[in-house]
Amino acid sequence: MTPAPLAPHPDRLLPADPGVRRLARELYRSVADAPILSPHGHVEAALLADDLPFPDPATLLITPDHYVLRLLHATGVGLGELGRGEGPADPRDVWRAFCAGWDVFLGTPVRYWFETSLSEVFGVTEQPSAANADELYDHIDALLRTPEFRPRALFDRFGIEVLATTDDPASDLEAHARLRDDPSFSGRVLPTFRADRYMDPSAPGWAGFLGELAETAGIDTGDRAGLLAALCARREAFRAAGGTATDTGVLDAGSQPLPAAEAERIHAAGLRGEVSVDDATAYRRDMLYRLAEMSAEDGLVMQLHPGVIRNHHVPTLERFGPDSGHDLPDVAAYTRPLTPILNDFGTDETFRLVLFTVDETSFSREIGPLAGFYPSVYAGAPWWFIDTPDAIARFRRAVTDSAGFTKTSGFIDDTRAFCSIPARHDMSRRVDAGYLATLVAEHRLDEDAAHTLARRLVDDIPRATFRL
Amino acid sequence: MTPAPLAPHPDRLLPADPGVRRLARELYRSVADAPILSPHGHVEAALLADDLPFPDPATLLITPDHYVLRLLHATGVGLGELGRGEGPADPRDVWRAFCAGWDVFLGTPVRYWFETSLSEVFGVTEQPSAANADELYDHIDALLRTPEFRPRALFDRFGIEVLATTDDPASDLEAHARLRDDPSFSGRVLPTFRADRYMDPSAPGWAGFLGELAETAGIDTGDRAGLLAALCARREAFRAAGGTATDTGVLDAGSQPLPAAEAERIHAAGLRGEVSVDDATAYRRDMLYRLAEMSAEDGLVMQLHPGVIRNHHVPTLERFGPDSGHDLPDVAAYTRPLTPILNDFGTDETFRLVLFTVDETSFSREIGPLAGFYPSVYAGAPWWFIDTPDAIARFRRAVTDSAGFTKTSGFIDDTRAFCSIPARHDMSRRVDAGYLATLVAEHRLDEDAAHTLARRLVDDIPRATFRL
Amino acid sequence: MTPAPLAPHPDRLLPADPGVRRLARELYRSVADAPILSPHGHVEAALLADDLPFPDPATLLITPDHYVLRLLHATGVGLGELGRGEGPADPRDVWRAFCAGWDVFLGTPVRYWFETSLSEVFGVTEQPSAANADELYDHIDALLRTPEFRPRALFDRFGIEVLATTDDPASDLEAHARLRDDPSFSGRVLPTFRADRYMDPSAPGWAGFLGELAETAGIDTGDRAGLLAALCARREAFRAAGGTATDTGVLDAGSQPLPAAEAERIHAAGLRGEVSVDDATAYRRDMLYRLAEMSAEDGLVMQLHPGVIRNHHVPTLERFGPDSGHDLPDVAAYTRPLTPILNDFGTDETFRLVLFTVDETSFSREIGPLAGFYPSVYAGAPWWFIDTPDAIARFRRAVTDSAGFTKTSGFIDDTRAFCSIPARHDMSRRVDAGYLATLVAEHRLDEDAAHTLARRLVDDIPRATFRL
Repeated sequence: MTPAPLAPHPDRLLPADPGVRRLARELYRSVADAPILSPHGHVEAALLADDLPFPDPATLLITPDHYVLRLLHATGVGLGELGRGEGPADPRDVWRAFCAGWDVFLGTPVRYWFETSLSEVFGVTEQPSAANADELYDHIDALLRTPEFRPRALFDRFGIEVLATTDDPASDLEAHARLRDDPSFSGRVLPTFRADRYMDPSAPGWAGFLGELAETAGIDTGDRAGLLAALCARREAFRAAGGTATDTGVLDAGSQPLPAAEAERIHAAGLRGEVSVDDATAYRRDMLYRLAEMSAEDGLVMQLHPGVIRNHHVPTLERFGPDSGHDLPDVAAYTRPLTPILNDFGTDETFRLVLFTVDETSFSREIGPLAGFYPSVYAGAPWWFIDTPDAIARFRRAVTDSAGFTKTSGFIDDTRAFCSIPARHDMSRRVDAGYLATLVAEHRLDEDAAHTLARRLVDDIPRATFRL
Repeated sequence: MTPAPLAPHPDRLLPADPGVRRLARELYRSVADAPILSPHGHVEAALLADDLPFPDPATLLITPDHYVLRLLHATGVGLGELGRGEGPADPRDVWRAFCAGWDVFLGTPVRYWFETSLSEVFGVTEQPSAANADELYDHIDALLRTPEFRPRALFDRFGIEVLATTDDPASDLEAHARLRDDPSFSGRVLPTFRADRYMDPSAPGWAGFLGELAETAGIDTGDRAGLLAALCARREAFRAAGGTATDTGVLDAGSQPLPAAEAERIHAAGLRGEVSVDDATAYRRDMLYRLAEMSAEDGLVMQLHPGVIRNHHVPTLERFGPDSGHDLPDVAAYTRPLTPILNDFGTDETFRLVLFTVDETSFSREIGPLAGFYPSVYAGAPWWFIDTPDAIARFRRAVTDSAGFTKTSGFIDDTRAFCSIPARHDMSRRVDAGYLATLVAEHRLDEDAAHTLARRLVDDIPRATFRL
Repeated sequence: MTPAPLAPHPDRLLPADPGVRRLARELYRSVADAPILSPHGHVEAALLADDLPFPDPATLLITPDHYVLRLLHATGVGLGELGRGEGPADPRDVWRAFCAGWDVFLGTPVRYWFETSLSEVFGVTEQPSAANADELYDHIDALLRTPEFRPRALFDRFGIEVLATTDDPASDLEAHARLRDDPSFSGRVLPTFRADRYMDPSAPGWAGFLGELAETAGIDTGDRAGLLAALCARREAFRAAGGTATDTGVLDAGSQPLPAAEAERIHAAGLRGEVSVDDATAYRRDMLYRLAEMSAEDGLVMQLHPGVIRNHHVPTLERFGPDSGHDLPDVAAYTRPLTPILNDFGTDETFRLVLFTVDETSFSREIGPLAGFYPSVYAGAPWWFIDTPDAIARFRRAVTDSAGFTKTSGFIDDTRAFCSIPARHDMSRRVDAGYLATLVAEHRLDEDAAHTLARRLVDDIPRATFRL
């Protein structure tokens, strides 16, 4: 059987109506090659600092990508077969399992990204299948051994101008320093301050985390004042290393400050391993407030994405660890829980808060209206489960009414999968081009303005939002 | 006045764009005549076993259809006038009330189904109106007296291959047995196990229900262990009668198991008529867990549709009984309340759970992501208030991102209105054809794959999901 | 630099597909000049009774319009600069700030209304900008000094047939009386009874409000029975003055009646300034029930819009007062909280309840289904944050399935901005024309019916809903 060809269409994702498509194509082309600003993601700085060859196709493309793992798992492929088991899986077997399951991705955004990456990064011309799995593996594997497929070479080829990583405050940012000091590397790789693991004093290992932070910061974290001081010190170090933003993922956006004595009491109880559920929640909400307070002080852009239930399936967590595909969206709320932060810092010129969601209902009801009043608040682009062509289009149609374009964040790829970065940004540029072209076709925007906005959405809007 | 013609267009519901429509039409036509698999509905097996003529147009088409009743009622027609009162209404009067109110259905899916049924099943060529009500009544009434309009003849004419009924565990499934033993009937009519009325020990009549069940099962249901044993026995009987699925409608999806002693305590209190609201809820949530446990054991596909507030208007309930149009949707949740079931059975190969909703917000936030990780979970097609052309399109756009096509259930008609079955399945095929054609037009799917998927959506996807 | 031209396209907001647009245009044109029925808004009767010239462009178009204020504020313009500060701002400076910020409105509905108003009301032919701000100001300011731009002249020019104002029960409706008695004014300007400030006995100033009401009504409001009697008396006066409706904005739709003694107890506590939060909530919910009871008695159409958090940013409230742009939407619920009202009055022929929302999720889940069963319930048009082209289209697609067209309210402009009235109604007519044309193009509605519905949506549907 002849394998199905893999040839992403140049007009993919553009509106079907011929008249609208013509303009959408023009808008898209005007920004298709614009530099990539990636202000939120999970690629490690060491990848670029070390610049070692990627080990193999499966370890690069399959195993770390929970989008891919999820749907294969949902159709009966075990996570162990996908390289997430205890023992090392043969990467070729992982790749074969992926190719054999390729059809379950039909019509999904994962398929879309993958097709674009396979075609444009690796020059693949056939749809993956059980029949050609080995051939494709060998083809990609051979490329990965060439200098052109080292991380830095791809970074340049992808046209990445800015790449933000996500880093623990206890990190010494050594890889970032190496990159900055390396005259042969000209990209900007910025650390992002993510203090999530210090926020829950009831979490296993919390005292140990505090110890690591204390060591890096050189500040005793044995009391809560010390923890805050250490976080401030590390924020300063992140800023010095080029960081412009923080990131916080919490179960909810509650942000009620506590009296210092009360926070100290819970902190001490946490170190003794004796924190009640209610106290842990109160401590976490106070910490969210404190992080906002610090952002209002030092100007690091605060990114917030509440509403994800982590590790829903305990047996999978126990066997395969976190980030194995069973984090799941929850109902999200912003307007009420963020009241303390917004009352105190909402109109502060230094403070900036980018709100992300995995609950689409909040776009027109909460995030758009908040970004449409508070100077500090920006509507974050669709993220995680909803960074898809359809959801991005819904986002624009829901948020523009209240917040226009300038109060949105610009696209974020949020990815661990380095090779998907250009495909994802490309997707966003296509969808936005389609949206703008539709507004023009409905005479809600003139063509010049559409061209200006298409450019701004990939350029000065993300630069301004993230203070790049 | 010339009556308005009734002539459903061959391209109805297909996308308006001429290019997209051309492909949509081709996709639709390739499945338009595929056999109907109806794995979830409310037609009675006795209807086909007895094969008696339908009594009259109103009793067939109006009185049992709460979709029709609702909107007529909302515009001022009393339920009594529609045949739901104490005394028998003249069916001709009911039909006249319906025809006189026909215009209130303009633009609604009820009108759509009705037009298709009237035209394709009964050969009606005029829009109903007060003026032609009697003429239409006589026309349909005459047809209903012919052999071609007996239930079995229509079953064949509609091309139904599988029809699932909904049955109480206390049912002896006598009609199913008659059908199975009748060599002149070749269709598959499968019972579906619906144990709702045993789940609430505070409900009036609960002890009596237990008694009926005990009698059919031959197992004492005086304690909770007995009830579970009786349910298991009846599940086995349903399986033996061809059943492949259960169905459960509950107020919420809470599924917390209780210690056996605690469940027994509430069971005993229920028999004494002394159950508190909290205990009733706990008992019901434990029962939901037990039903899942049984499904993991016997492989009956578990269908779950929480989130409907039953009998909202007490005076209507008292006067016209249940299913009289005032069941109303509520906010629905899945991810959190199903945690106990999914942690224990979510990756079990025997267990299967199809999640339905009347709250569209849960498609992209909960149902899609759950079906996109758990091998056991399937996204149920839009149901009840949302089994409409627009909502089905929104469902695909919301769920495909996370769950693709293979983790969706295929269309269910969920109907009491026998003659609407082909029109409803036809609607779904048209809408899916339009969705697939749009994906092709936007170069997100290739044409061959679209053809394959169109076929799979009406064939092996429902067969696999419901283990037909 | 040549200024960008301002020339709203005759086909704006109509669907892009050429075939669909042709019919949409025809439908739109058939109702474009129909008289405006504005059954819900915030223009003051005194404006028309006095018929004084508008003071200046900023005071007419910018300062009172919280839609405009919001987004300018969100992009860094202080509310003081927009005329909302303590001291009087120079209106020319306010206008300049608006023109300088014009680009932030690109793609938004505010821009859409503004463009239409500037072009069609004031003959402006250039997009506002910092460069032409003074010129535009002078142009509009000069027009405002002419007799053709007095309120009554504009009222006639806009083709307003009915305009409902919003009035406190303590109002003596003097301006309405003047208009009614003035033979030179032929429009209908109807008061709407809005009793919000009497519903919360814990609110600052409540006792004073009761005093004002007592004075107008001539009834002692010192106890709760007196308050109810005074409200009834004022409702009668509103009806006598032509009023057909009431309006109620509450945090939630809870409607549980209290025993009279309990309500009296809280009333007395309110007068002493000693009401607990729970008691205040109970009192408010009882009051909502009483207002429904009164509507079932006197036939005033009850409008209800719960779910807005008022004055989210306390520092802005303190400095700039209410209605300064930081009222924000909340999750809204109807089916459960309205149970008491709907059980008692839901099928009453005199009672009528129009439900509005700023939470779009409630359209298909609650408002459509409620309007699709209860004869008394109507689905209110999208309102406030969602009275936008996209949201109106989503509303039709969500609500028509359950409630058709006749159980929707017709468009409401809800505006304080007098000159935006025609642009807003025009927007709605265009969007509805596009929706109807799409239904025809998809063969879900025939063309004759689409014409009939287009007309009914701007004519007998709002007349019937609001008993005009």
